[in-house]
Amino acid sequence: MEGKEEADEKRMGVVLSSNNNKRAKIQDDDSQPQTNNVVSLRNKHSEVGERIAETGFYQSMELTTDTPICTKTSKYQTIEVHQAKHYGKVLMLDGVIQLAERDANAYNEMITHCAMMAHDNPQNVLVIGGGDGYVLSEVLKHSSVKHVDHVDLDGDVVEICRTHFPWRDAWEDPRVKLHIADGAAFVANSKHDFYDVVIQDSSDPYTCCEDGSLVELPSCVLFTQDHFRNVHKTLREKGVFIFQSECFQIPSDLDCIVKWRKQVLDLGFHHARYGSITISSYPTGQVGFLLCEKDRDAGDHTTNNKHTNHPGDLQQQSSSRIDQRFQEIVKKGCSTTYYHPRLQKSCFDLPLWVEKKIYGDETRTTQTETQNN
Amino acid sequence: MEGKEEADEKRMGVVLSSNNNKRAKIQDDDSQPQTNNVVSLRNKHSEVGERIAETGFYQSMELTTDTPICTKTSKYQTIEVHQAKHYGKVLMLDGVIQLAERDANAYNEMITHCAMMAHDNPQNVLVIGGGDGYVLSEVLKHSSVKHVDHVDLDGDVVEICRTHFPWRDAWEDPRVKLHIADGAAFVANSKHDFYDVVIQDSSDPYTCCEDGSLVELPSCVLFTQDHFRNVHKTLREKGVFIFQSECFQIPSDLDCIVKWRKQVLDLGFHHARYGSITISSYPTGQVGFLLCEKDRDAGDHTTNNKHTNHPGDLQQQSSSRIDQRFQEIVKKGCSTTYYHPRLQKSCFDLPLWVEKKIYGDETRTTQTETQNN
Repeated sequence: MEGKEEADEKRMGVVLSSNNNKRAKIQDDDSQPQTNNVVSLRNKHSEVGERIAETGFYQSMELTTDTPICTKTSKYQTIEVHQAKHYGKVLMLDGVIQLAERDANAYNEMITHCAMMAHDNPQNVLVIGGGDGYVLSEVLKHSSVKHVDHVDLDGDVVEICRTHFPWRDAWEDPRVKLHIADGAAFVANSKHDFYDVVIQDSSDPYTCCEDGSLVELPSCVLFTQDHFRNVHKTLREKGVFIFQSECFQIPSDLDCIVKWRKQVLDLGFHHARYGSITISSYPTGQVGFLLCEKDRDAGDHTTNNKHTNHPGDLQQQSSSRIDQRFQEIVKKGCSTTYYHPRLQKSCFDLPLWVEKKIYGDETRTTQTETQNN
Repeated sequence: MEGKEEADEKRMGVVLSSNNNKRAKIQDDDSQPQTNNVVSLRNKHSEVGERIAETGFYQSMELTTDTPICTKTSKYQTIEVHQAKHYGKVLMLDGVIQLAERDANAYNEMITHCAMMAHDNPQNVLVIGGGDGYVLSEVLKHSSVKHVDHVDLDGDVVEICRTHFPWRDAWEDPRVKLHIADGAAFVANSKHDFYDVVIQDSSDPYTCCEDGSLVELPSCVLFTQDHFRNVHKTLREKGVFIFQSECFQIPSDLDCIVKWRKQVLDLGFHHARYGSITISSYPTGQVGFLLCEKDRDAGDHTTNNKHTNHPGDLQQQSSSRIDQRFQEIVKKGCSTTYYHPRLQKSCFDLPLWVEKKIYGDETRTTQTETQNN
C-alpha cells in the first residue's frame, strides 16, 4: 500500500469541528476583508466532505455535532458514524463517506435491482463488501432468492452498522450466510458455476493525485483482472456481475471505467454497460456501476454486436417479466423508493461524450433505436 | 425584494481567497488539533462555491487565483468571471455560479435540444435570459430556425460573455435579434400565437432559509402564473415552453417543481414533464427543466391522460424524425457533446420518490410501458 499516506492527503474526507453549530452571521462591516467573513461562516459548521484533487472539486455535509455517534479503529480501518443535520446518519471509513441515510437508497437500490432484474431467476447470490448491509437487505426482497453469501473483510463494520442502521435485520434472514473474510480470496476459492448474481459493493480502489498518478487503496484487489476472472468462473451460465464503478465526471475514474470494461469483456462477459445514479452525497453528485452479463444473448440472433451497450438489448419479454417481478415486491409491502423498472433501461443512457469515451465506435450511441422499441 | 440580504446570507456563493494557491501539506504532528490542519488545507485554495442552507450541503470549485478575470457591478447585479483550475471560466452573478465551461454543455444542450426536438418544425424561437449566449448558440444549430428573439435584462452580462466565452458569435447570426429588456414584460407585450419554442434560461427564482421560508430573487417574476399565461399566449399551436426548474434533491426546489407544473397545466399546457441533467458544478450535481407542450397530442387518441408523464408519449414517428434532425446537425459539423436523441426520452425517468412527488397518481410510474415501446 505504498503511497497510502499521500493518497489520504490528496482525496480525503475532512471533518471541520466546532462547538458552535449555529450559522455565523456575516459581518456587515466592509472594512473586514471578505475572506475572513466567509471563513468564519464556513468554520462554524461541523461537516464531513470530500475533495477531488484532480478537478479541484469539494463537497460536504453539515453535522449536528463535531463528535461521531460511534468511532472504532478496527484491524483494517477507522470506522465512524456521524449524525448529519439533514442527511441522517453517515458512515465513514478512513475518513471517506460511504453512505448517508438521506440518499443511500439511490446507490443501494440501483446496484442491487439492476443486477437482480438483469437475471431471469436469481437464486444464489454473492454480495462482496457492502458491510453496511443495505445491498443485502435489497437482495432479500426478491422471492426467487434461495441463498446469499455475504462476504466482508471487516466484522467491525458489520457490527457497527447492525447497531446504527434500520436495515439491521438482513443478516437474520435464514437464507443469508455471513463470511468475515477477504472478498477476493473468497471468490478465488468459490465453486465454479454456482452464483446467478454477484454484487460487489466496495469502497474506492484508487485515488488520483494532482500529478495524475493513481495510488492503490485497500479495495484495489477487487478491481484486478485476476479477480474479475474468478468472478466469471464462479458465475453460472447467464450469470450477472455488477460492481461499483465510480464517477464519470472524474477523469481518472472514467479511465478506470474504460479499462475495467475492456478487462471483463476480454474475460468472456458478453455485455458490460455503465449505469448512472444521481446521488448528492457522493462526489460530483453521481456514481455508477458496470453491469456485466455472461452469455446474455446466447441464442439471441437479433443482436450482432456482442459488446453492444444498445439500450434496446433489454428484450421485450424480460421487460414484462421485470414489471411483474417488481409488482410482486410492491405487493409484499417492501417497495423500492428510487429504483423502478424504466430505470433498468434509461440509467444506461449517458451524456454523449461519456458514451463515446466508454463505447467508442462499438455502437450507434446517437440513435433512439426505434426499430427495437 | 424584501429579505434579499437575508437570502444572500442563506444561500450564497462564497469566494475564499489566498495568495498561496498550492495545497497545504497536512501536518503530521498529532498534537496539532485536526480542525486546524483541515482548515489550513481548505483555506489555501481560492474557491467559488454554494451552500444550501436547508440541507446543509456545500460544494465548491478551486480557482487559479483569488482575483476574477473580470468583475463589474451593473445596474442589476455584480458580474464576475473567474478562472477555475479545472472547470474553465466560471460566470457568477451576485456570487452564485451560473456556468462553468467544463460542464456548461450539460445544461445548455439539454434545455435547448430537448425543447427544439419536442417541436416538429421550430421556426420562431424566443430565448428569455441566458445572457451568456450558450443556449442561443445551440438554438442556431437547427436549420429550421428562421428568427430568434433573445431577451436579457442586463446588457453588461451579454457584453462580458461576448468577450470571455467561445460561443460569442451567436449574436452575429442574422436570424438573431437581441433585446436588452425585462423578460416578463417582453413576453407580456409579445404577439399572440407567434413563437414555436420559448426557452427560459434564468437564474434561481427563490432561495430557501433555514426556517423553510422562501425569499424572492430577481428572477422570480419569470416564475409567476401571470408570466406562464403570457408565455402560453405567445406560443403557436403545438408550441413548446421549457424553463430551468431547479434541483429535485433540494426540498424547497422540489416543492416549486410541483407548484409550477400544476400552474402550467392549469393554464392549458397539455403536458409538463421534468427532465433531469447530470452536472457537477450545480448544487447537488443535478438540475432540471420543465418541458411544457401546448396541444401536444391534439388528434392523438392513443393517449387518454392529458397530464401524463408517460415516457412512451414520444411517438415513434417523431423518434425517427429526431434521429434524422440530429444527424443533420452532426453532418453540419456542429454536433452536441452531451445531448443525444435517446436522452430525449430517458431524461424524464426520475427516481421513484421524485416521480411520486411530481406526478402523484397521474400515471403508472413503475411500468416499463412495453406496449408502447
